[in-house]
Amino acid sequence: MSNSKVIKVGVIGAGRIGKIHAENLATRIPGVVVEAIADVNLAAAQELAENLHIPHAYADYRKIMEDNSIDAVAICSSTNTHADLMIEAAAAGKHVFCEKPVDHSLEKIDRAIAAVKKAGVKSQIGFNRRFDPNFKKLRDLVQEGKIGDLHILRITSRDPAPPPAEYVKGSGGMFLDMTIHDFDMARYLSGSEVEEVYAAGGVMVDPAIGAAGDIDTAIITLKFANGAIGTIDNSRKAAYGYDQRAEVFGSGGMAATANNTPNSSVYSNAEGVHSEKPLYFFLERYMESFTAELRDFITAIREDTPTPVSVEDGLKPVIIAMAAKKSLEENRPVKLSEIR
Amino acid sequence: MSNSKVIKVGVIGAGRIGKIHAENLATRIPGVVVEAIADVNLAAAQELAENLHIPHAYADYRKIMEDNSIDAVAICSSTNTHADLMIEAAAAGKHVFCEKPVDHSLEKIDRAIAAVKKAGVKSQIGFNRRFDPNFKKLRDLVQEGKIGDLHILRITSRDPAPPPAEYVKGSGGMFLDMTIHDFDMARYLSGSEVEEVYAAGGVMVDPAIGAAGDIDTAIITLKFANGAIGTIDNSRKAAYGYDQRAEVFGSGGMAATANNTPNSSVYSNAEGVHSEKPLYFFLERYMESFTAELRDFITAIREDTPTPVSVEDGLKPVIIAMAAKKSLEENRPVKLSEIR
Amino acid sequence: MSNSKVIKVGVIGAGRIGKIHAENLATRIPGVVVEAIADVNLAAAQELAENLHIPHAYADYRKIMEDNSIDAVAICSSTNTHADLMIEAAAAGKHVFCEKPVDHSLEKIDRAIAAVKKAGVKSQIGFNRRFDPNFKKLRDLVQEGKIGDLHILRITSRDPAPPPAEYVKGSGGMFLDMTIHDFDMARYLSGSEVEEVYAAGGVMVDPAIGAAGDIDTAIITLKFANGAIGTIDNSRKAAYGYDQRAEVFGSGGMAATANNTPNSSVYSNAEGVHSEKPLYFFLERYMESFTAELRDFITAIREDTPTPVSVEDGLKPVIIAMAAKKSLEENRPVKLSEIR
Amino acid sequence: MSNSKVIKVGVIGAGRIGKIHAENLATRIPGVVVEAIADVNLAAAQELAENLHIPHAYADYRKIMEDNSIDAVAICSSTNTHADLMIEAAAAGKHVFCEKPVDHSLEKIDRAIAAVKKAGVKSQIGFNRRFDPNFKKLRDLVQEGKIGDLHILRITSRDPAPPPAEYVKGSGGMFLDMTIHDFDMARYLSGSEVEEVYAAGGVMVDPAIGAAGDIDTAIITLKFANGAIGTIDNSRKAAYGYDQRAEVFGSGGMAATANNTPNSSVYSNAEGVHSEKPLYFFLERYMESFTAELRDFITAIREDTPTPVSVEDGLKPVIIAMAAKKSLEENRPVKLSEIR
Repeated sequence: MSNSKVIKVGVIGAGRIGKIHAENLATRIPGVVVEAIADVNLAAAQELAENLHIPHAYADYRKIMEDNSIDAVAICSSTNTHADLMIEAAAAGKHVFCEKPVDHSLEKIDRAIAAVKKAGVKSQIGFNRRFDPNFKKLRDLVQEGKIGDLHILRITSRDPAPPPAEYVKGSGGMFLDMTIHDFDMARYLSGSEVEEVYAAGGVMVDPAIGAAGDIDTAIITLKFANGAIGTIDNSRKAAYGYDQRAEVFGSGGMAATANNTPNSSVYSNAEGVHSEKPLYFFLERYMESFTAELRDFITAIREDTPTPVSVEDGLKPVIIAMAAKKSLEENRPVKLSEIR
Repeated sequence: MSNSKVIKVGVIGAGRIGKIHAENLATRIPGVVVEAIADVNLAAAQELAENLHIPHAYADYRKIMEDNSIDAVAICSSTNTHADLMIEAAAAGKHVFCEKPVDHSLEKIDRAIAAVKKAGVKSQIGFNRRFDPNFKKLRDLVQEGKIGDLHILRITSRDPAPPPAEYVKGSGGMFLDMTIHDFDMARYLSGSEVEEVYAAGGVMVDPAIGAAGDIDTAIITLKFANGAIGTIDNSRKAAYGYDQRAEVFGSGGMAATANNTPNSSVYSNAEGVHSEKPLYFFLERYMESFTAELRDFITAIREDTPTPVSVEDGLKPVIIAMAAKKSLEENRPVKLSEIR
Repeated sequence: MSNSKVIKVGVIGAGRIGKIHAENLATRIPGVVVEAIADVNLAAAQELAENLHIPHAYADYRKIMEDNSIDAVAICSSTNTHADLMIEAAAAGKHVFCEKPVDHSLEKIDRAIAAVKKAGVKSQIGFNRRFDPNFKKLRDLVQEGKIGDLHILRITSRDPAPPPAEYVKGSGGMFLDMTIHDFDMARYLSGSEVEEVYAAGGVMVDPAIGAAGDIDTAIITLKFANGAIGTIDNSRKAAYGYDQRAEVFGSGGMAATANNTPNSSVYSNAEGVHSEKPLYFFLERYMESFTAELRDFITAIREDTPTPVSVEDGLKPVIIAMAAKKSLEENRPVKLSEIR
Repeated sequence: MSNSKVIKVGVIGAGRIGKIHAENLATRIPGVVVEAIADVNLAAAQELAENLHIPHAYADYRKIMEDNSIDAVAICSSTNTHADLMIEAAAAGKHVFCEKPVDHSLEKIDRAIAAVKKAGVKSQIGFNRRFDPNFKKLRDLVQEGKIGDLHILRITSRDPAPPPAEYVKGSGGMFLDMTIHDFDMARYLSGSEVEEVYAAGGVMVDPAIGAAGDIDTAIITLKFANGAIGTIDNSRKAAYGYDQRAEVFGSGGMAATANNTPNSSVYSNAEGVHSEKPLYFFLERYMESFTAELRDFITAIREDTPTPVSVEDGLKPVIIAMAAKKSLEENRPVKLSEIR
C-alpha cells in the first residue's frame, strides 16, 4: 500500500516554531522521518538534531534542497525568506509546508503560488488555528448547515502581552502581524470571501506602539460575498491572558467557543467563585493544532489529495489586512478590489 | 419621616407595558398607591383597576392630570403621545415616568426636556435594561475601576422573532426601534458618549422587512469620547430565543454577561449535553428590571434626588440611531455632530 | 365559571414566613383575598394588615377559625402548633396550607392526617423546594423517562451559616430540621420511597452544636423501593453561601442543577476568572417557589383537584429523619420499617 | 550535571498500556531511551520497537532483567504478573514503574514492598489520575489550605460502557477493578487515610454482571482519619460517556472539577443549548496524565527523590476495596482494621 511509504522531511529553521514542527514531525506523526534540519545557527540545528535523532544538521539550507531523498520541506525561517524558499523548494520538486505569513508583498506571494503550481508540488500555509478543535467544530457546524444561512460572525482575539515596540516596527503592523490569523479564521468559518472592511482602532495599550506607527486595539467590520457581516476585535494586551473566541450566528442557530484553560477546577470561597484563566499564549493554547496541521500535510502528500490550506489561502488574508490598514488610515470602508 | 409619605401615581395606558407597570407599582413597591388608570379602551382600564384595587379608571387621561392628589404619572401609551403627555404632566406639576422612546423627533424631545426642567418635576425614561442585575454588574465593575481604562465594548442583542412588516413601517426603523436599547446600554456601560458610528447591515431574516424599507441584521461600530471603541450586533430573529449579552474589556480586565435561562438544569445523554434556551423575550427576561426602575423612580421622588435615567438620556440614543441610519445609507462613518 | 370565585384566606402567624406567604397571597396570586391575619404579637399582625390592605388583624387565631367567610388558612406559626391548628382548621371546614414540618411526633401527624381526611378539606405542606424551577425540571426529566431507570440520586444541601446552638437544642436535630427538605426532595425527584438509610456525620463546623447534642455535617446513603440508591451531603456552613444542588442519573442519562446567582457576570483579570456566589439563603434562593406553592394550593381549592404536597408527604420525611438519626447513633444501616 | 544522564528503560508488555508508556517514554520525556521492549507476543514487541526506534525486542522479559545497561523497567503486563516482576526487577537493581493494581493479594503486595525496599530502588505505581491537571488542582488547593479543614469529599466515577461479563469474573469485582482508582483518589485528595467504609450497590446496568457475581452501580461512604467524610458513586455505564468528577469541601471553601470535552463549542438552536459530551474513556481523558506520571518517575530516578506514588500507595486502595466488598456483602460499615 502506498500509504506505508515513509515521508522524509527537511526542516528549515531551528527557532521556536521550527523546534515545534521538528518535534511533531519526528515523534507524533507516524510514517515521517525528519531527515535534516538547517539553521544559520548551526549549534541550534545540531542540538535539535541530537534530541530528535535527526541524521543531518546543516548551517546551509541548500543542503536540504539538494538532497533528493527528501520529499518535503517545512519552512520555519524568518518571514522575509518564506517566498524565496518556497520557490526554491518547488524548483527542487519538494512539497512545501510554509509558516505564515507567506510574505508582505503580494507580488512575491504571486510568484510563490506560480512556482508551486508549475512544479506540481503540494503546498500548505501554517494557519494552524484552523486545526484547533474549537474552531474546527464551528466550521463543521456551518458546513453541515446547522447554523443555516450565516448572518453574523464574531471573532475575539486578544494577546496576553504586547510585542516590543522594536518588533512592531518590522512587523508590517498589527493587521498583518496579528489580525491576519483572524482574517484567515473569518474566511475559514464563513466559507466565504471578505469583500469589504471597515477598521476602527487606536493606541490604548502602549504609547511606544503608537510611536512606532502602529495601533494596538481594533474593531474591524467585515462584509462577506455571501451577504453575511462580521466583526473582529483585537487587543495586544488582555490582563487575563490569551483570549481566543469565535461565534457564528445564522438562520438556524448559533455556535460559540470558549477559551481553553489548564484545568476545569472551580473554587468557591467567601470572596466568590473562581476558575482558571485561559492558557497563556499560542504555544500552550494551540499546541494540538500544530500537530494536526502537519498530520494533514503529510496525509495530503501520501494520498495525493489537496492540502487543507493552500498558498492562495495565504494570499487572501494579506489583502484583507492591507484593506484594513487603508480603512483605518482613511476612516472609511474599503473594498478589497481597491487593493487588488 | 418624609420617607413614609405615600406616593399616588396615575398610569396612562393599560396595554402590555401599562399592565406591568401598574401591577408593579400596586404590589411590589412599598408606599405607592395607584390612584387611577386611564386608557382610551375604558374596559381595559376598568379590568386592570378591578384586579389591582385601583380606585379610578378613566377613558380620558386628562382626569389624571386634573387630579391634584396624584403625585406622579407613568406614561405607557403609544410612542407618538409620549412627548405631549410629558409636557402636559409637567405643566400639571406631576413627576413623570415615561416609556421609551420619548419621540422620534429631536425637536419634540427638546420641548419635553424644557417642560420638565421648567416645572422642576422628576422625570425618568424607561430604559429598564439599566436595572437588570447582569448589566448593572458590568456597569459597576467599570465604575469601580475593575476594568481599568475601557478599551472595547461589545453588545449582542438579538430578538427571538421579527415584528410584522406592518409594524416595521411605523417603527422608525430597526435602529430607532430595537437598537436604541443597545445605544443606551453602550452609554450606560461605558460611562462615556458616543461620538461616531459606522453601521453595516442588511435584510437576512425577512424580505418583507426589506420591502418595508428597513433592515433586520446589523453590526454597528461605535467610537466613544473617552477613546474606547465598541461593537453592537443585532438580529431580528435568533432561532434559540432572546440573546442579550454584553462585554466590557479594558486595561484591568474583562467582564461579560450570559443569557438568563428558566432553570439551571443540564441534561446529558447519548446525544450530548443540553441546557436551557434563554428566557423567551423581554417580558420574561427583564421582569425584574421593570420593578427596579420604578422603585428607583419612586425613591427619587420621595428623597428628592435625581432620577437614574433623565430625559436627556432619552434623547442621546435617538441621535445615535439617526447617525447609524445615515451611516448605513451612505456606507461611511458618521459623526453625531452631523446629526445635531 | 367557578374558577372566578375569590378565595378568602386567613394567615396564622406574622413572622418571617408568615409575611412572605401573606404578601404572596395578597399580591401575586390572582383571585385571592387575605381576609385576616392573626399573631399573638398583635402589633406585627396589624402592621402586616395595613401594608397589604388586609381587613382584619387578630391576636387570637380562633377569630379566623370562626369566620365562616374564610375558605382556607395558611399556618405559619411555630412548629409545635402546626398539627393542632391543622386539626382545628379541618374541624372548621377550612382548607389548610401548613408550613413544614407538620410535627416531630408521628402520632400527632397521624391525627392531623386523619382530621383533614375526615373533614374532606384540601391540605398542603410547605415543601417549597419542589416548586423551584431547577428541581422541578429534574423531576420532570425523571417522570418523562429522559433519565431512564433511575440508578443514582445525589443531593448537596449546605447552609451558609449554622443556627445558634440554642436553636439547635429545640430543633429536633439536623436531620429533622435541615435534611428533612432533602429527604422530601429525594422522594420528589426519585418518585419512589426510601426504604433504608445509612448516616455518617460529625461536628465539624461548631463545637457548640456538638455540645447541644447535634451534628453539623453529614453524608446519608439512601436505598429506594425502586432499587435506586442515593446520597445526600449536608453542612451547616458553606463559606461561599447556600449550596443547593441535585443530580439524577439513570440508564438514559443524567441531569444536574447548579446554584442560582444574583447575576450572570464573569469577571476576568490577572488573578483569575471570577463569578458570583450563590444567592445567600433560602429567602433569596427560593423566593419564586414560595409563590408557586401557594398558587398551586389555591388552584387545587378552586378546581377541586389534589394538592401537590399532601400531609402524608409531610409524614414520610419525618420517618426518614428518625431512621437517619438512629443510623448515626448506632452506626449501621436502618430500615424505615424499624421506625414504623 | 547529573541531570543530563540518559535513563535507559525497558518496557515489559506491548499491549494497550504498554504501547502508551513506550511511546511516552520514547518521544515525550527528554533524556530517556527505551532500550528494550518485551512481550510474549514477539511480533507486537517488534512492531512497537520498529515504530519507536527501540533497539531491542524480546519475547522473554528476562533479557531486560539481565541487561545491566537498563536503569528502570515499566511493568505493563497482566495484573497477575505485576508483583513477581517487581520483585525480579528489584533483585536486578532496577527502578520499577508498575501498572496498577499491584496485585489482588495483600501478601504478594507485601513481598513486593519488601523487595523494593531491600533493593533500595525507586518504585512507582501507575495511579495516573493523580497527575491529571483537574484533580491535581484540587489536591493543591487542599494542601495549600484553601479548602480549610476538609469536611466532605465527593467523587463521581462512571464508565461509558460496562466490561464483558467474562472480564468481570476475573477482575476481582468492581471495587478492586474500577473503584480502586477512586479509593486512591480519595486518599490523594484528602491527604488522609480511610478508616471505615460503607457500601451500597446493586446490579442496574447488566444482569450478566450480576450473574458473574459482581455489581455495576454503587455508592460508598468513607470515613477518614482526619475526621472528614466522603462519598464515591460509581456506575459501569453512563449513557453520556466517561464521567470523572470530584469535589472537596471544607471550612474555607469548596473546589470541584468538571469533565473534559473534545472542544468548548456551545451550539444553540430552537431545541436548546448543546455542548459536547465528556471525552469518551480513559485513554482520551487521561492521556496527559500518562505522560506526567512517567516524567515524575524519571525525575525521581535522576534526582534521587521519592517517587510520587509508592508501592504502599498501591496497597492501601486494595485494602479499602476489600473492606467495601465486605461492607456490601454484610450491609454494615466495615473498618479497615478488620481487613488487616
